[in-house]
Amino acid sequence: MKKEISHVNLSTIKDPKFLSNLSYSELDVLSADLRKYIIEVISENGGHLSSNLGVVESTIALCRSFDFSKDKIIFDVGHQCYSYKILTGRDFKNIRKKDGPSGFQKRNESIYDCYECGHSSTSISAAMGIADARDLKKEDYYVVSFIGDASFENGLVFEALNNLSKNLSKFIIVINDNEMSIGKNEGGLSRTFRKLSNTKLYQKSKSATKKMLSISALGRFILRKLSSFKDWLKRHLMKINLFDLLGIKYIGIINGHNIKQMERAFKKAKTLKGPVAIHIKTIKGKGFECAEKDNRGIYHGVCKFDKLTGKIYSDESLSSWSKEYALRLYEVMKNHNNAVTICPATGLGSDLTNIQKDFPDRFKDVGINEEHGVVLAAGLSSNGIHPFISIYSTFLQRSYDEISHDLARMNLNSTLLIDRAGLVGLDGDTHQGIYDASFLYTIPNCVITMASKSSQISSLLEESMENHGVFAIRYPKESFNKNAVEENEKVEFGEWKELLSGEKTAVVSYGPIINKLVKEIKKKELNITVFEAIYVRPILEKYIEDLLNYEKIVIYDAYSTEVGFANTLTALLITKGYKGNIIVKAVPNAFIGHSTIENQREELGISIDKIIDIL
Amino acid sequence: MKKEISHVNLSTIKDPKFLSNLSYSELDVLSADLRKYIIEVISENGGHLSSNLGVVESTIALCRSFDFSKDKIIFDVGHQCYSYKILTGRDFKNIRKKDGPSGFQKRNESIYDCYECGHSSTSISAAMGIADARDLKKEDYYVVSFIGDASFENGLVFEALNNLSKNLSKFIIVINDNEMSIGKNEGGLSRTFRKLSNTKLYQKSKSATKKMLSISALGRFILRKLSSFKDWLKRHLMKINLFDLLGIKYIGIINGHNIKQMERAFKKAKTLKGPVAIHIKTIKGKGFECAEKDNRGIYHGVCKFDKLTGKIYSDESLSSWSKEYALRLYEVMKNHNNAVTICPATGLGSDLTNIQKDFPDRFKDVGINEEHGVVLAAGLSSNGIHPFISIYSTFLQRSYDEISHDLARMNLNSTLLIDRAGLVGLDGDTHQGIYDASFLYTIPNCVITMASKSSQISSLLEESMENHGVFAIRYPKESFNKNAVEENEKVEFGEWKELLSGEKTAVVSYGPIINKLVKEIKKKELNITVFEAIYVRPILEKYIEDLLNYEKIVIYDAYSTEVGFANTLTALLITKGYKGNIIVKAVPNAFIGHSTIENQREELGISIDKIIDIL
Repeated sequence: MKKEISHVNLSTIKDPKFLSNLSYSELDVLSADLRKYIIEVISENGGHLSSNLGVVESTIALCRSFDFSKDKIIFDVGHQCYSYKILTGRDFKNIRKKDGPSGFQKRNESIYDCYECGHSSTSISAAMGIADARDLKKEDYYVVSFIGDASFENGLVFEALNNLSKNLSKFIIVINDNEMSIGKNEGGLSRTFRKLSNTKLYQKSKSATKKMLSISALGRFILRKLSSFKDWLKRHLMKINLFDLLGIKYIGIINGHNIKQMERAFKKAKTLKGPVAIHIKTIKGKGFECAEKDNRGIYHGVCKFDKLTGKIYSDESLSSWSKEYALRLYEVMKNHNNAVTICPATGLGSDLTNIQKDFPDRFKDVGINEEHGVVLAAGLSSNGIHPFISIYSTFLQRSYDEISHDLARMNLNSTLLIDRAGLVGLDGDTHQGIYDASFLYTIPNCVITMASKSSQISSLLEESMENHGVFAIRYPKESFNKNAVEENEKVEFGEWKELLSGEKTAVVSYGPIINKLVKEIKKKELNITVFEAIYVRPILEKYIEDLLNYEKIVIYDAYSTEVGFANTLTALLITKGYKGNIIVKAVPNAFIGHSTIENQREELGISIDKIIDIL
Repeated sequence: MKKEISHVNLSTIKDPKFLSNLSYSELDVLSADLRKYIIEVISENGGHLSSNLGVVESTIALCRSFDFSKDKIIFDVGHQCYSYKILTGRDFKNIRKKDGPSGFQKRNESIYDCYECGHSSTSISAAMGIADARDLKKEDYYVVSFIGDASFENGLVFEALNNLSKNLSKFIIVINDNEMSIGKNEGGLSRTFRKLSNTKLYQKSKSATKKMLSISALGRFILRKLSSFKDWLKRHLMKINLFDLLGIKYIGIINGHNIKQMERAFKKAKTLKGPVAIHIKTIKGKGFECAEKDNRGIYHGVCKFDKLTGKIYSDESLSSWSKEYALRLYEVMKNHNNAVTICPATGLGSDLTNIQKDFPDRFKDVGINEEHGVVLAAGLSSNGIHPFISIYSTFLQRSYDEISHDLARMNLNSTLLIDRAGLVGLDGDTHQGIYDASFLYTIPNCVITMASKSSQISSLLEESMENHGVFAIRYPKESFNKNAVEENEKVEFGEWKELLSGEKTAVVSYGPIINKLVKEIKKKELNITVFEAIYVRPILEKYIEDLLNYEKIVIYDAYSTEVGFANTLTALLITKGYKGNIIVKAVPNAFIGHSTIENQREELGISIDKIIDIL
């Protein structure tokens, strides 16, 4: 009878040192336990599932091969650090909860986190900086960037590789190749990754490496020679490799679910001078059937789900703004042959699947390439096609230059559909959508809008095609009640709506939260005027004139920092000689950690209650 | 005796159609004349010299091979479009002058300009958009991106290539490879470009192609077969080519000074399905000895110079802010072993050559890779090294996301040395430095400063190393009088200086222009307080308190739009209950075309005179 293998108590792990005492059979059990634990916790807390299930063994192999209390590792974009968090002793069951660990690496959480990211493709550049600093300080340790093939296709990585010195040693890039971004990867480079996997040489090298595990030292010596011949052959016969092109040493392809094989690769990498890229192959979602089969990305980032069946819980009475916008964008795509939808790997997240399916020629998923996506849009617009760029607020900031230099400067008609604008809750500081309106305010020629009701969406979408240059439409992450179906409402260009009429005090606000505000003011029977600034920019002079009549003006911006709208409106009022009392309640211009959106509003002093208090 | 070849009158050209009637000998004369004309005009007007001298023949070949009144061409970054401007009938002798043509492509200047750029590496993405639009509209013409090898190393190009569909036809990328960015290129890819040029195959192909020009149709047929064998060989034996990697057809390397050879390549490219890359080799500065020999980039962008000797005119009594900052940064680098200087190919422009020479281990020119440069800096800072990122204001905006997500969010100590902040004059709208303070204001944790005197520089540089997170120091393009040597002046963190004391009116301003303002106020004996807001951010409460005592406050910002500093200061005053008169005079939030800085200030109503008028 096989010996029963003992389980590690995952919630009591302090650091990864215990790993070196485990046998490979015990590591297999640990891997299974880690998967189970991740599924269990994420099915409750929500978070990134598939990417984390794919890297369990590679994380174990890394933690056994390196000492990350001294060596440094950066998990690119951070979607795959849960095993690492567990193995380095975080309170994983409270991940993404208030005061619990973040879903991403966090420097103040542990000495095991040397850097933080939540946006894609920064890890190699950052690791280079860390390694350069190490060398300047004459310190001695390894620096590792762990990066998925999807992140690998962003221009930032290419810039980093192109700047990588051949002399930078103890520098290791692990490419986690699962042929998936959030959904299936496209693009030339991913074709290359696939090509590389399908070559006979790879198949051969796989079986060779398999054998390597079970043979003698002499055998290994011969294999080494053979493998350097193989390297030569590869360099000369199948140079389809970006690393070779850039002069970076390359080890691959390694089975990313085989700990022993990976350990051997890491050991080999440690002996090489100069930077080394190790290409591992993994299965995204590994060990959870529905996640493994999912090639759309449904289990990439999830809310609560059934940990056995994978069924994702959803409240049927609620809809999301993403869904509402996608439905209406579909109509626009149907009615306007000159409309094109562009998104950077966020098609599923922004619910664009039907548009992709029914308008394949006019739907462009550009991958995690926000810069390219915006310039592509500018090219389209310069030649008479109207681009709708669907993008999350937090990722739009990577296109700041392109929005300014390409779209706005030439005043090219285009629509920015900014999803997840405002506070985003559990994803925390790397993903907040509170800055886009502010930075768009710094760019000339940009219109900025935000609807409060789904009935306003179609009017905004149609208006955005009417020769206004860059036209941003923001919408939040929050869900809303489906029953609130309303007739389409016409919104004129620049229009503000007076939702309530009072006397001495006026509130200027916008976005879905204004509905709650109005309800609350009515309930409390307050004598207050409420203006809905659907157009956050431009601010028409007539509304300034209107506002001059009030003794007190409260500017309530629950979706942005004060830098753009609130400060501009204040300045305009002052220019017009307003002498009354202006109070601004906006999201503070700060980095705001993870918590629920409601908690965040409460803590920041911008909940409805707090506004009612000052009216 | 050889027939005398007639010259084309360059200033009367209406469009490039005449080119098809010229013989190759006549084209040689035309090339020489174009060079002479460019040297003549640029020696007076200033502008981009070397890059334009390098592409004379390729521009002629392009204009003969395509009809750009219908076909579309984008000159990447626009540094090399002067021959094109002359051949498409612009008033070249007035280039960069007020009301004369821009130094870059401009859509409103000519039907021959379909797109505009001034920032690097947008042309392929934009051309893809233009070609996609063409196909959606079922139109039929070629789209050409003309791009230098230096622009080719930016991540945006990689993103574009990675997104390029194999089915996008009539799409041609011409890579102008001169092994130079502004100065000499570094980085893996440029090594690859060089490697490609030095291979025997290239040498062979060169001589083969040379022969091709003089042989019969049968000979050409054989050569074609040979060349497809050569292609096969190359694909299989020397796959060191990014295009192969990405599945893009490649023709190269072509002599970029041989019109006939290029025409043949363009003809070939037109017959191929799918996108085609044509790699031409040129000599930057060709035909002007000092520019040809210059590998530092002195003749990349020039002011007035002697058109015979190349001697660049400079007023010995003037210095530049770049020079003054570089001198003091040198001292900081000498005194602090943990200081590193990073720049994106702007070492010469920002006068960092001595730092590069004397601190090679701590100087990093990352090429035109602003995104990577900032994340590299974040990595360094996260590991205890203080990065000084020297960058032009206009290019900083490409790092918006990285400044926020990597530097500011982790509050990593770092100094942004923002050169050419404020109006930049002749380079026009793509290069204005008037937005950086505004967009930095939208990012939490950023300090923003601007000195008015060189005596303040050292204090700011030293202070920036004192644990303040992201610390921006801006300085303008204008030159200033060398005689004004002063003792170093200590500036406390957050300090504003009261330069003049008056009674009812206070002016808040900053930057070198404040010296002129003070002089003028003194001359006119006005009773005015002048605060110098060396710290544009944060604004300390005590200064707000001081300002509350004045009946009238004029905020004069000659280096930024009103969105950041002026509006924030206004809002702070209002929050403190200020009821007096606030007048803002800032650069309007607009795109501002080329003219002298003085003209621009005059026209925008922000010259000193205009300020004096309203005091």
